[in-house]
Amino acid sequence: MSKVKVGIIGATGYVGVELIRLLNAHPQVELSAIGSNSFVDKSITEVYPSVGIGNDMKCMKNEDVIKNSDLIFTALPHGVSEEFVLQAVKEGKKVVDLGADFRLKDEATFKEWYNVSFIDKKLHEEAVYGLCEHYKDEIKNAKVIANPGCYVTSISLPLMPLLKEKLIKKEGIVADSKSGVTGAGRGLTLLSHYPEINENMVPYKIGNHRHTPEIEQNLTDAAGEPVEIIFTPILAPMNRGILSTIYCDKAEGVTIEKIQNELDEFYKDKPFVDVLPLGQVATVKHVRLSNKCAISVHENKSKIIICSTIDNMVKGSAGQAIQNMNLMLGFDECEGLSTMATAF
Amino acid sequence: MSKVKVGIIGATGYVGVELIRLLNAHPQVELSAIGSNSFVDKSITEVYPSVGIGNDMKCMKNEDVIKNSDLIFTALPHGVSEEFVLQAVKEGKKVVDLGADFRLKDEATFKEWYNVSFIDKKLHEEAVYGLCEHYKDEIKNAKVIANPGCYVTSISLPLMPLLKEKLIKKEGIVADSKSGVTGAGRGLTLLSHYPEINENMVPYKIGNHRHTPEIEQNLTDAAGEPVEIIFTPILAPMNRGILSTIYCDKAEGVTIEKIQNELDEFYKDKPFVDVLPLGQVATVKHVRLSNKCAISVHENKSKIIICSTIDNMVKGSAGQAIQNMNLMLGFDECEGLSTMATAF
Amino acid sequence: MSKVKVGIIGATGYVGVELIRLLNAHPQVELSAIGSNSFVDKSITEVYPSVGIGNDMKCMKNEDVIKNSDLIFTALPHGVSEEFVLQAVKEGKKVVDLGADFRLKDEATFKEWYNVSFIDKKLHEEAVYGLCEHYKDEIKNAKVIANPGCYVTSISLPLMPLLKEKLIKKEGIVADSKSGVTGAGRGLTLLSHYPEINENMVPYKIGNHRHTPEIEQNLTDAAGEPVEIIFTPILAPMNRGILSTIYCDKAEGVTIEKIQNELDEFYKDKPFVDVLPLGQVATVKHVRLSNKCAISVHENKSKIIICSTIDNMVKGSAGQAIQNMNLMLGFDECEGLSTMATAF
Amino acid sequence: MSKVKVGIIGATGYVGVELIRLLNAHPQVELSAIGSNSFVDKSITEVYPSVGIGNDMKCMKNEDVIKNSDLIFTALPHGVSEEFVLQAVKEGKKVVDLGADFRLKDEATFKEWYNVSFIDKKLHEEAVYGLCEHYKDEIKNAKVIANPGCYVTSISLPLMPLLKEKLIKKEGIVADSKSGVTGAGRGLTLLSHYPEINENMVPYKIGNHRHTPEIEQNLTDAAGEPVEIIFTPILAPMNRGILSTIYCDKAEGVTIEKIQNELDEFYKDKPFVDVLPLGQVATVKHVRLSNKCAISVHENKSKIIICSTIDNMVKGSAGQAIQNMNLMLGFDECEGLSTMATAF
Repeated sequence: MSKVKVGIIGATGYVGVELIRLLNAHPQVELSAIGSNSFVDKSITEVYPSVGIGNDMKCMKNEDVIKNSDLIFTALPHGVSEEFVLQAVKEGKKVVDLGADFRLKDEATFKEWYNVSFIDKKLHEEAVYGLCEHYKDEIKNAKVIANPGCYVTSISLPLMPLLKEKLIKKEGIVADSKSGVTGAGRGLTLLSHYPEINENMVPYKIGNHRHTPEIEQNLTDAAGEPVEIIFTPILAPMNRGILSTIYCDKAEGVTIEKIQNELDEFYKDKPFVDVLPLGQVATVKHVRLSNKCAISVHENKSKIIICSTIDNMVKGSAGQAIQNMNLMLGFDECEGLSTMATAF
Repeated sequence: MSKVKVGIIGATGYVGVELIRLLNAHPQVELSAIGSNSFVDKSITEVYPSVGIGNDMKCMKNEDVIKNSDLIFTALPHGVSEEFVLQAVKEGKKVVDLGADFRLKDEATFKEWYNVSFIDKKLHEEAVYGLCEHYKDEIKNAKVIANPGCYVTSISLPLMPLLKEKLIKKEGIVADSKSGVTGAGRGLTLLSHYPEINENMVPYKIGNHRHTPEIEQNLTDAAGEPVEIIFTPILAPMNRGILSTIYCDKAEGVTIEKIQNELDEFYKDKPFVDVLPLGQVATVKHVRLSNKCAISVHENKSKIIICSTIDNMVKGSAGQAIQNMNLMLGFDECEGLSTMATAF
Repeated sequence: MSKVKVGIIGATGYVGVELIRLLNAHPQVELSAIGSNSFVDKSITEVYPSVGIGNDMKCMKNEDVIKNSDLIFTALPHGVSEEFVLQAVKEGKKVVDLGADFRLKDEATFKEWYNVSFIDKKLHEEAVYGLCEHYKDEIKNAKVIANPGCYVTSISLPLMPLLKEKLIKKEGIVADSKSGVTGAGRGLTLLSHYPEINENMVPYKIGNHRHTPEIEQNLTDAAGEPVEIIFTPILAPMNRGILSTIYCDKAEGVTIEKIQNELDEFYKDKPFVDVLPLGQVATVKHVRLSNKCAISVHENKSKIIICSTIDNMVKGSAGQAIQNMNLMLGFDECEGLSTMATAF
Repeated sequence: MSKVKVGIIGATGYVGVELIRLLNAHPQVELSAIGSNSFVDKSITEVYPSVGIGNDMKCMKNEDVIKNSDLIFTALPHGVSEEFVLQAVKEGKKVVDLGADFRLKDEATFKEWYNVSFIDKKLHEEAVYGLCEHYKDEIKNAKVIANPGCYVTSISLPLMPLLKEKLIKKEGIVADSKSGVTGAGRGLTLLSHYPEINENMVPYKIGNHRHTPEIEQNLTDAAGEPVEIIFTPILAPMNRGILSTIYCDKAEGVTIEKIQNELDEFYKDKPFVDVLPLGQVATVKHVRLSNKCAISVHENKSKIIICSTIDNMVKGSAGQAIQNMNLMLGFDECEGLSTMATAF
């Protein structure tokens, strides 16, 4: 059976290179083209000497990736993807967009947070939000996938089933999310400079991080009524991983056991979400280098506390994108993706 | 002027060795005796080759420290200090206890959380809780100081003035606290084993950490009515530092500016608490290796978010103990203590 | 085609759990039994909550692994493996021993360094030293493989072809090797305690590390005459990886280009050794989480400097063991092993 | 007694801010002026929010620092200091230059390595090389000090007494030096980007690092005849610290004990160099945040191995600069400098 040809637009950022690593191990696709306008005609070896070992594929112009691929991943800053996605769709290709351009359904909200308008409203209507465990059927038939944000994934997965079943109150939800530094990308900034973030911990964009409306869109969709969240992102001295500790209130008459049962039930057949038994705690180690989300549920006085961890570069980015691709192409959902974390 | 002789009981744990480092730089005291029942007759060099360079003081039995010192620091596990403190007080010596034995005023609560009873109730009544910025006058006249817990200090300092002035609601306060690994001490555990906690983040004792009743005692004292807290401690991959992100609700009619002003006002003459201007964020770097607490105030929808950072081994432990000693002995509060963090 | 049943004796140490991770992804074998005398009847989930997710295999007694497996990995401290290996061979099973028991061919040397004698001399004669790139043919027909030490692998791979071709002098070779902390295993020690090794770097066992005679055995075998090495191991604050910087002298009339060419030539068809082009530098990043060894050659005055990096837990341990298994079982040498490092 | 007014030119780099931290704790000087052409009229708080707490000194133009200070530290890239130093000397001020402009005595060598010529040859002749333990008398009378490089200090201190006494051979000396990332400064580079250097180790500038001629100048001066060195710098994932492992050969008839004795003897009255007893190993922990150099001596076959550690920002830079200042101003050599490392 011939392999499906997949290409990456924006291949030389951290998300792009993680896609290369994972696609390289995928048995049913062939990485046919990598695009990078900054490194045209350079081999990936020249950009990432370590990754590139034994892989001398050359970067082409982002535009050229489309015609060389059947399915395209776009890993670009917001506001830049839409044009490429439009072109790809015109040529009958499928797309998984790892940027933010198609994540928010409401144009006004998108404009408010990203200061960019939609170009093609119909395309936005057709694009499917790729949180695989919740929108699987739509994803299977999608042409364009908006791959979810990393923080968003860690927070939405545990909360959506609970809001849908009204087991927790929709008011006063707080998510305190600690992220590894790869989440800030390859671009040089003082915040990601080693001596600045090593032995440090830095909250940032408190109250105005762009993942907020995306989380709220998911929670609102699950609850069937508007839900808001208090979300605080924090940069932590590690390469990979997100730990979100989430605080919420039980609905009237609900016990922690009922909450645990609902999550157990909802995720029992979903290979990439592990709901830990009561008494265990989800840590970043549970998910490193895997496409898993680990969830643990706790109680303290009136509050339910949920620990939710993902590898921000896998389930929070390139891994979930491949999970989406697997669904779009009719492959086994787990193809090429690890369900086992590294112990260290 | 002759220097005051100070001794350390339990000198070879992490708290003890941090006391040695700080006392070594203090111009008005002389480290006269270090006790360690595990290392009697060994020099500190043999236990901490690095610290001990140039300091060949020998460990004596903990019992013997008392008679060799005018003021004694006890750095022992809970349930072990009280006997030494009793003995020291009998001999007319002053004590700063860095353990938990004298922190909780209510014996039933102490017994509930530590499973130990008070030995001498009168001594517990006389002991003063050493949160310097809040109990300065009592500390000056104290014989026995209960030095506050590390998490407790980071959470109590920003909240106490606000609760006292009723600027925030006393219900639903959440503190999500990230701590460096020295907080777990020198004892070998899998959790502190390098490959386990490096590149990891681990919530622990959710809902049952022993600092909870101590935080609540402080908040209740400030508010004048019972206050509870939801407190989640998390181990983070760094040596030193605590970042507490605290979530609370404004009282009716209160603005963030009013909250900021209250903290500015309350701490304006307190050399070890820095309330950052609105718009800045307190990070662990603000306080590393200093005796400072840095506080920043933020707003997100209905919630006030407070970031509060300390160095767990300085303001969270040995530094605050010396600040207490300074007050007890009539020294300048800042003597021997740094108000400037290291930049890296 | 039915899968080959493989078992692990000593499955709950760091090497064992890395074997589990890698074997789990191997398409042609089935992990049939895991042994751990410390955790009999416990599932791997109970020992490594993170790794075990979705894998509830129970530990059996080490003895019982043999009969449940066609090929057995032994991951035990030195002096403990031989008995198990003997038993396995008696039952007609193949073995890859990841400990030190079969690495040294000379019993006197073994006894000198490990203070243990050989039990079955014939078994030692039959055992094949599993440095795959150098002893491939013998490995294919072996019943028992002595899997090389981690430091040994990083130092032997670049030096052996050069000594064989007499391109470098056999006198005065120095290897300064920096290793991640997983190399010290899961056992709790002060040296691996997070606050002790984080922000630190610790040379240890200078002049008496047990990998020394093993390196010298390899170098001597390549040179055809006795070769000694000055080897200094250093613990570094990272989880995985070894960087050996090796200093040696060119033989009369030899240029760096000749050295580079020899390494290029020798390793050109070996999928797990990458000789970088002159001008590039091998770093730990080149090999993380892969089964690769990256080698770069440099010149400074009269000396040749070689940088050689491996992931100590993969090419330095579990990965090379699987590479050996692949050869023994007639599989593709690369089956189940990654040739691409993670970028972060 | 009035304090001496000291200023810093180039105060906002990492070296500058470390000077601020240390001078802030010095009892006999007053930080009178800080210069930074990039941040004129900004307070140090705006550049280093953490360090600046409680210190609202404003940056002035570098030119203006001279007239506001009695002694000036210049912390500038090579080729930029000399003009400022000339001006300062003209105005009768003393200078400690932390850059490279005055370190090399031979202009041809300087030009070869730095591609810059001397401006004022006489000034270069008068400038004193500030390796305090070796040139103390000259330093006391100097107007201009060339503060030694960090790697240079760690390598020269153990080797100079041995070469002077001809206890080791001058041929074939190798230094393999591992440095924390602050050594690369505050400037943003991919090499210092957190996800690139965390969990990594990177040799760089093998054979062409600019500290090489400076080390050789020191060793040659000590030996009384030309000495060359093979020097390999390696970036390691920690903030501070240098560990140099040095390999050399004993001179005919010399024992390790003789070498140990010589170092013991030479450094016995020097407060900032600790020669550890035979059998102990110098680690980065021995010196963190102190102005110490820790040295240990080992033997392996024919080689002597020396481990030498410093904190690159203290003894390797700002601390040694202050030690030089202390000598120049007639203060106690230890004033304001710590001889005790932090344990973590």
